Amino acid sequence: MEVGKCHKRVDAFDKVTGRAKYTDDMCPKHAYVTRILHSTIAHGRVVSIDTSEAEKIEGVVKVLTCFDVPDRPFPTAGHPWTNVPEHRDIADRKLLNEHVRHYGDEVAAVVAEDYVAADRAIRALKVEYEEYPFVIDPIEAAKEGAPLIHPELQDNNILAHSDIRIGNYQEAIKEPGLIKVEGWYYTPTVQHAHIENHICYAYQEQGGRMTVVTSTQIPHIVRRVVAQALGWSWGKVRIIKPYIGGGFGNKQDALYEPLCAWLSLQVGGHPVKLDVSREETFVNNRVRHAMPCHIISWLRPDGTFAARKFELWSDQGAYASHGHSVAGKALGSFPQLYPCDNIEADAWTVYTNKPTAGAMRAYGMPQATFFDESHVEEIVMKLNLDPIEFRRKNSMPVGYVDGFSKNELYHDSYNDCLDKAMELIDYDRKFELYKNQTGPVRRGIGTSLFWYNTAVWPISIETSSCRMILNQDGSMQLMTGETEIGQGCDTVFAQMAADTVGLKVEDVHVFTNQDTDVTPYGSGAYASRQTYVGGFAIKQTGELLKKKILGHAHTLTRMPVDILDIVKGNIVRKTDNRILMPLGELATRILYDFELSEHMAAESTYSVKSNAYSFGVSIAEVEVDIPLCKVKLLNIVNVHDCGNLINPPLAEAQVHGGMSMGIGFGLYEELLVDKKTGRILNDNLLDYKLCTTMDHPDLMVDFAENPEPTSPFGTKALGEPPACSPAPAIRNAILHATGVAINSLPINPHKLFAAFTEAGLFETL
Amino acid sequence: MEVGKCHKRVDAFDKVTGRAKYTDDMCPKHAYVTRILHSTIAHGRVVSIDTSEAEKIEGVVKVLTCFDVPDRPFPTAGHPWTNVPEHRDIADRKLLNEHVRHYGDEVAAVVAEDYVAADRAIRALKVEYEEYPFVIDPIEAAKEGAPLIHPELQDNNILAHSDIRIGNYQEAIKEPGLIKVEGWYYTPTVQHAHIENHICYAYQEQGGRMTVVTSTQIPHIVRRVVAQALGWSWGKVRIIKPYIGGGFGNKQDALYEPLCAWLSLQVGGHPVKLDVSREETFVNNRVRHAMPCHIISWLRPDGTFAARKFELWSDQGAYASHGHSVAGKALGSFPQLYPCDNIEADAWTVYTNKPTAGAMRAYGMPQATFFDESHVEEIVMKLNLDPIEFRRKNSMPVGYVDGFSKNELYHDSYNDCLDKAMELIDYDRKFELYKNQTGPVRRGIGTSLFWYNTAVWPISIETSSCRMILNQDGSMQLMTGETEIGQGCDTVFAQMAADTVGLKVEDVHVFTNQDTDVTPYGSGAYASRQTYVGGFAIKQTGELLKKKILGHAHTLTRMPVDILDIVKGNIVRKTDNRILMPLGELATRILYDFELSEHMAAESTYSVKSNAYSFGVSIAEVEVDIPLCKVKLLNIVNVHDCGNLINPPLAEAQVHGGMSMGIGFGLYEELLVDKKTGRILNDNLLDYKLCTTMDHPDLMVDFAENPEPTSPFGTKALGEPPACSPAPAIRNAILHATGVAINSLPINPHKLFAAFTEAGLFETL
Repeated sequence: MEVGKCHKRVDAFDKVTGRAKYTDDMCPKHAYVTRILHSTIAHGRVVSIDTSEAEKIEGVVKVLTCFDVPDRPFPTAGHPWTNVPEHRDIADRKLLNEHVRHYGDEVAAVVAEDYVAADRAIRALKVEYEEYPFVIDPIEAAKEGAPLIHPELQDNNILAHSDIRIGNYQEAIKEPGLIKVEGWYYTPTVQHAHIENHICYAYQEQGGRMTVVTSTQIPHIVRRVVAQALGWSWGKVRIIKPYIGGGFGNKQDALYEPLCAWLSLQVGGHPVKLDVSREETFVNNRVRHAMPCHIISWLRPDGTFAARKFELWSDQGAYASHGHSVAGKALGSFPQLYPCDNIEADAWTVYTNKPTAGAMRAYGMPQATFFDESHVEEIVMKLNLDPIEFRRKNSMPVGYVDGFSKNELYHDSYNDCLDKAMELIDYDRKFELYKNQTGPVRRGIGTSLFWYNTAVWPISIETSSCRMILNQDGSMQLMTGETEIGQGCDTVFAQMAADTVGLKVEDVHVFTNQDTDVTPYGSGAYASRQTYVGGFAIKQTGELLKKKILGHAHTLTRMPVDILDIVKGNIVRKTDNRILMPLGELATRILYDFELSEHMAAESTYSVKSNAYSFGVSIAEVEVDIPLCKVKLLNIVNVHDCGNLINPPLAEAQVHGGMSMGIGFGLYEELLVDKKTGRILNDNLLDYKLCTTMDHPDLMVDFAENPEPTSPFGTKALGEPPACSPAPAIRNAILHATGVAINSLPINPHKLFAAFTEAGLFETL
Repeated sequence: MEVGKCHKRVDAFDKVTGRAKYTDDMCPKHAYVTRILHSTIAHGRVVSIDTSEAEKIEGVVKVLTCFDVPDRPFPTAGHPWTNVPEHRDIADRKLLNEHVRHYGDEVAAVVAEDYVAADRAIRALKVEYEEYPFVIDPIEAAKEGAPLIHPELQDNNILAHSDIRIGNYQEAIKEPGLIKVEGWYYTPTVQHAHIENHICYAYQEQGGRMTVVTSTQIPHIVRRVVAQALGWSWGKVRIIKPYIGGGFGNKQDALYEPLCAWLSLQVGGHPVKLDVSREETFVNNRVRHAMPCHIISWLRPDGTFAARKFELWSDQGAYASHGHSVAGKALGSFPQLYPCDNIEADAWTVYTNKPTAGAMRAYGMPQATFFDESHVEEIVMKLNLDPIEFRRKNSMPVGYVDGFSKNELYHDSYNDCLDKAMELIDYDRKFELYKNQTGPVRRGIGTSLFWYNTAVWPISIETSSCRMILNQDGSMQLMTGETEIGQGCDTVFAQMAADTVGLKVEDVHVFTNQDTDVTPYGSGAYASRQTYVGGFAIKQTGELLKKKILGHAHTLTRMPVDILDIVKGNIVRKTDNRILMPLGELATRILYDFELSEHMAAESTYSVKSNAYSFGVSIAEVEVDIPLCKVKLLNIVNVHDCGNLINPPLAEAQVHGGMSMGIGFGLYEELLVDKKTGRILNDNLLDYKLCTTMDHPDLMVDFAENPEPTSPFGTKALGEPPACSPAPAIRNAILHATGVAINSLPINPHKLFAAFTEAGLFETL
């Protein structure tokens, strides 16, 4: 078995030696370049743009403004298309916008021979704006009378609202003797900050078809969006995805591909490159939804829930992008993590005059987990309960089934994860040791659970396709529509394919570039779906290929098919394990046989109709320097039940990255908006405090490998889950250390100073 | 029906606007370049190469010589691999050669950062040779005692000999009253002179796999040859073929791909480009086999054949390449064009110290047709018969079946073609008019028939594969392993696919680049096979896709499958021709359906077990200026029976090109060898007299569209046939005009002066 082994990444050598080709490496030398003019107001209308000076600049090929683009709004979210019109993403964005909806909105673009000319032209453009009032707080924006951000679509700014009603909250809270715990929580706007900024280039060929080579997680979806933006039929667009330097959900959106394609069309289909700066990445790509949240829990004295209320406002920013799906997922988290018979939960997604929020690793769940697990910790404090025992008792029980996803908690996953995590971090000893500390520097330890879905069924289709080709030497080409975005899926797919067909991993050659003209349909890298969903397609397709091979093996060896197998690239007779011939010999003999000649390939689609819960826990240990208002993360452990591991070191690497992102979310990161202008104040990696390896201790990781029964390789979501629980664990550790609950992320010195002041902590030192 | 219509080429717009990408357009900017050091002796051994000065030159990355290459001879011919060892191509060439076998042989290579450095380094290399005697005439080379060119393989220079024996020649010639007609004929070495010289670049990626992007007709075969040359398993090599600027058989060989791949390996897998000059194209690629031929025919006074003898020597040059296959094809032509009960025919392929001969358009048949049809004309003259009537009476009769290929002449093709050609050129009037001319300027009209096989079955496998993908808008991707090399196969394949599935041609998007990692197996562009063989694979695969589509159409429309059809991109109910839904709607609904979701694709291999005769005729009208020894071609017509035309203007264009090549073969082209040194004297387009449009009249073309019954679209060979018969038609016209038979091509003024002098023609003026 190759699955479960520590195989070296199939792209390791190419990536460390610089051989691996990214979008910019592939861009033709003669491509034009572009720069975009961004608005300098947060809300208003472009009255005029004087392009005359810009057009005179040598090297400028074309200046295009919001007055030149087609009046054809398009959606951008990286969701598969749906046959149900009311489930489709909202088309609220044009290629360039006359109605400017946030500071930095796109109002014009310059196509030029080089960046010097393009930059000079951008500076030479003269824009006249009519300014409107703007709103940057989602609760304010949701109110009647707020400045309307999309008046052409709706007469308020609430993109969507959804609710969950279980039992009868209003009746349940009347139960005598209940203890009320109430809190307001806030998570900030953060950005993905992947290594490779979004880049794409577009050109026409093949009788005018449009090709866009782009750093995207979702080539097949971007194909559709580009076609929608151009008003073309979808088959006329081709998307090619080379290696990409990270995405984390930002590239689970059509970003500048539609604009780039349209710009190429304006210059006769000549290649046009659109390479985004870090500053534009912060302001003009996507961000994580900031969310204020309000929770009330009513508890019985024995620590069981009687009723719960949850209210969430999701800050969408200027355009719909993924829209309400993110808030919807956060909303759905609430009744499942701590089930209760009486729940009233509401979520609103609200337009604001800010950068657009979209998908980001774990898609609403880091926010939801922070709300849920911060709130639970306050319950524990208020009722003087043990935080671990409370969680063991009240969290989703074994055998729990979600009515919508039909997901089930098959194993005792939470206890398995808690037990491992507690042992690894020496929890019990430290928990006791850190009780009732005094003095300026105090330590604490805190816990957070989380759960996470795998893939998006039944909200959306979960279709994955695969094609395999048997080479003449018995090695294999493997293609899927799923995308390697740095996470290592090419490697785990190679392992899966090797096991299914009976090859060595090194004989599976993965076609890593998705190309919508070539690679079979797959929705792409999101929702931690690829290993799970791709596994179905690989298993099914591999079995088809194996059947063909064994059929030919029967012809060549005269042995009955049912006693034949393929093991490590050899045709083997199972009854005595004799190697009858190498697979390469079979492949060559069959292809060149005068009677049997066949190019052996298999291609199939698997439409997955299941989903799978992933689970896990973070425990964080911190040291808080109260006078300095400084938190030092001493230790942190994540333990995951993501089913069987396909490649343990790759799984661990995924957890490391997610934990680092979770730590940044907890302690450092926030995109700041100037309230007076709506401008982003820290749109660069100097001022935006991205968490680095210097900011955290060695990350402890372990797994509870409970096999997922619905999954062909026993695996389930791991890509996003590690980012869910570190922030609330840290927050709860600080609470444990200091007795001060910080309910707003990031927990930076400013906030600690305010909170410690309010708590009178400085006076007690 | 889209087949049979004048569809614009699918690549027309891209090619005329320069958008179409050729190999050099795709080469990365940072690729190293190479230059090759060619030997300055015709035969000998490299004693030493001093690389020290070359290595000091700035920008030189690596200097490699014949002493550095692996001792692993490999074959280069563009034939599919065969499971039968004795049928495999001869492995007689190393990457660089210590044993130098022709003037220009490769002895060293320089890899450098730019061409200035590479050129300087080549000039700085000091080579010491040990010289051997050399031989450039194939009849001399075949004799005992000739200098041995491949002593490691064989103790003479005869690569192969084959013969045909029908009846009993020696007995048959004893029949009383027979008239003997005997002649020696000679065709020269010519070169393909395609527009784009051979170019390739190679680099490593994917854990060390080797990719070669190359201008080739045969990507899947080159993959195997590169692997053989490197000593690698075949699946580790990937070949990509962009658009190519012509090949005509020269690129039906592994040319410099193996060397380029090996050079890349020597510099750590860095991209290395090998771009061949025109001079190298003439000397170091492939040429058409020069052939001396001897024919004796014994005729009865009524003009029927009693017995015939045929002897052919094929000048192979220094390396085996396609070897004896070419002479074998020429040999096979003889008994089929004019069947006779008693035949003794022999062909020898012989190594000489000259550039290597390989495949060239029509593969031995232009030579064979020149021999056969020149000889027949002499029979006609000697027996005072009518040349047309003799051909109608003695050429392959209707119903003739070849015992080996099982080909049959199903229609009265020769008479159909002759009738059309004679009418077009006003033959009867001119033939009478030009009899018995006197004076310095005389006109004549001459005829030549030919036949040609389609594809190579049963000599080799004839396997073609195809993959189709249904796009979400109802358009389609079409992939085959067959290669667009300028001939227009992408367009005719699109037409075939459109008809099979039921689409408009513009909705078939052809994936034009062959990529051995992606495109299904096909042998490539040679043997005029693609339209015939590719047609089988397209038809079969299209029917598979259509079946899937109609299955889903049944589900969506509830109509029985057997009353459904696809017409011009719509699902149609056949019983009342009602359009039930556009195919795009079906494709989108199915892909995104929660229950049915399927990425619709089909892929299949067709292993063809048939072959098909193509036929045709050329009639040429010339004016010969006897004092100037100058031939002016006044008119020429080709009429072909290539079965049904798929795209008439593309078919006509193929004939135009082939006729031009045939005219050049007849009147102008010859690669000249200096007998003292073995050096090619005219390795450039100034001195090599390539035929251009300035050198010939408007070309008249017509077709006798007799449908080929074995062919899915009724079509058969057309790519090569047009080059077969122009030269003998011109030669026969000159004979008609002057009474002088020129049996050696090209018929240039030097030869005419000698022949007219010998015939005493100048004295009669």
